[in-house]
Amino acid sequence: MPTELHIFAVSGIPEITPGADLGALIADALRRTGRTAEAGDVFVVAQKIVSKAEGALVRLAEVVASPLAREWAAAHGLDPHVVEVVLRESRRIVRMDRGILISETRHGFVCANAGVDTSNVAPGFVTVLPRDPDKSAEGVRARLSEAFGCPIAAIVSDTFGRPWREGLVNVALGVAGLRPLLDYRGCVDPHGRRLHATMIALADELAGAAEIVMRKTAAIPVAIVRGAAEWTGDGSGRVLMRDAGRDLFR
Amino acid sequence: MPTELHIFAVSGIPEITPGADLGALIADALRRTGRTAEAGDVFVVAQKIVSKAEGALVRLAEVVASPLAREWAAAHGLDPHVVEVVLRESRRIVRMDRGILISETRHGFVCANAGVDTSNVAPGFVTVLPRDPDKSAEGVRARLSEAFGCPIAAIVSDTFGRPWREGLVNVALGVAGLRPLLDYRGCVDPHGRRLHATMIALADELAGAAEIVMRKTAAIPVAIVRGAAEWTGDGSGRVLMRDAGRDLFR
Repeated sequence: MPTELHIFAVSGIPEITPGADLGALIADALRRTGRTAEAGDVFVVAQKIVSKAEGALVRLAEVVASPLAREWAAAHGLDPHVVEVVLRESRRIVRMDRGILISETRHGFVCANAGVDTSNVAPGFVTVLPRDPDKSAEGVRARLSEAFGCPIAAIVSDTFGRPWREGLVNVALGVAGLRPLLDYRGCVDPHGRRLHATMIALADELAGAAEIVMRKTAAIPVAIVRGAAEWTGDGSGRVLMRDAGRDLFR
Repeated sequence: MPTELHIFAVSGIPEITPGADLGALIADALRRTGRTAEAGDVFVVAQKIVSKAEGALVRLAEVVASPLAREWAAAHGLDPHVVEVVLRESRRIVRMDRGILISETRHGFVCANAGVDTSNVAPGFVTVLPRDPDKSAEGVRARLSEAFGCPIAAIVSDTFGRPWREGLVNVALGVAGLRPLLDYRGCVDPHGRRLHATMIALADELAGAAEIVMRKTAAIPVAIVRGAAEWTGDGSGRVLMRDAGRDLFR
């Protein structure tokens, strides 16, 4: 049972361009720091560089804004082209109020602006979320496991806001090689009572932990969590998405 | 700039009873493990033991269930006394649907069952949230800083569910000696673009990171995050609560 975790940033990742072999670049950067990977290491990779590597970028000049996008943008001082990309990335608008647009993406994530982001990307472009974050994570996982000759887990993460609480937290969009939920249902506490309704979103907590060393502005888009090897195994980020039918806030 | 965090559980905390000097018991347990604390260590303490130490316990046999509590409990197979405690701890019901009761506590937290918990407590009792989690955190912070002769930060945490995502994550209810939100607004990304709307809920990410080593059933209610010393300072958990007037989901 791990009672210790060690979390460290992987510095020296170059600017990522479409077509980049992300796993190989991460492995190179880690080696240049004089470190190596160990079996069960969880690599947390910011969505931003995954999107860039996969070409999940939109050139705003090529986007024709719909009347809805133009009106919403005008009312709230936003770029109508960015709003249009947000609408195109959405399959359901959850809230559209006070200049804030919360939507459900085609994957099923519920987040602000459908994950469309204007920061840390060349002017005139926005990034959109990877088409299939689990597949992205699996690509990184396979490449890193091969590079280091041991089983690695990977999380593709993004920072999401929450209802009711201020501030963003990093969460797991895509997961590979890791069990994302810890299920304590049916376990017995020290008083002999069964714990019910206790599932811990491990992959989200790991993503959040990694974010602390990644930092928004410091261009450190990768961190490693060491000490979580017991939870390696099959996994997908999809199980962390609540089904709309079970959701009370959609 | 910290690019490394080290997170470890503090084992050997005894069963906590009302009136316990929690800070002293945590210091003793840490010393028995052969470790000491360092300046800037963040001690994350589970709400459950804080509530027990403060006597924030309710004996269910003494609770008279209201008609609303009895009806809701009967409809969903719940204990009417527990439901009554939940209603008493709430100042606003946010959702009451499908057997799930999401409410706003008197502090302003929005969570399931107003934080009332039947697990890890003696049969016939439930714990309620500490009356003033910041004050609780400050008590622990002051005691540990004194015990180890260096400035310590403290977080009182609980696991909360989230709309839209499965699984619970640990969050910070009370904070002392730590800046709970990192404000990147106005910072410039490597492309020269200003980051807007980027505030990271550091204290929640620290609480979540600590939870990974604490574990629900293992009776490890305290963990230390080392490496976050640069964020020590004044802080309160209240800034992590979104004001109802700013909330789109209440």
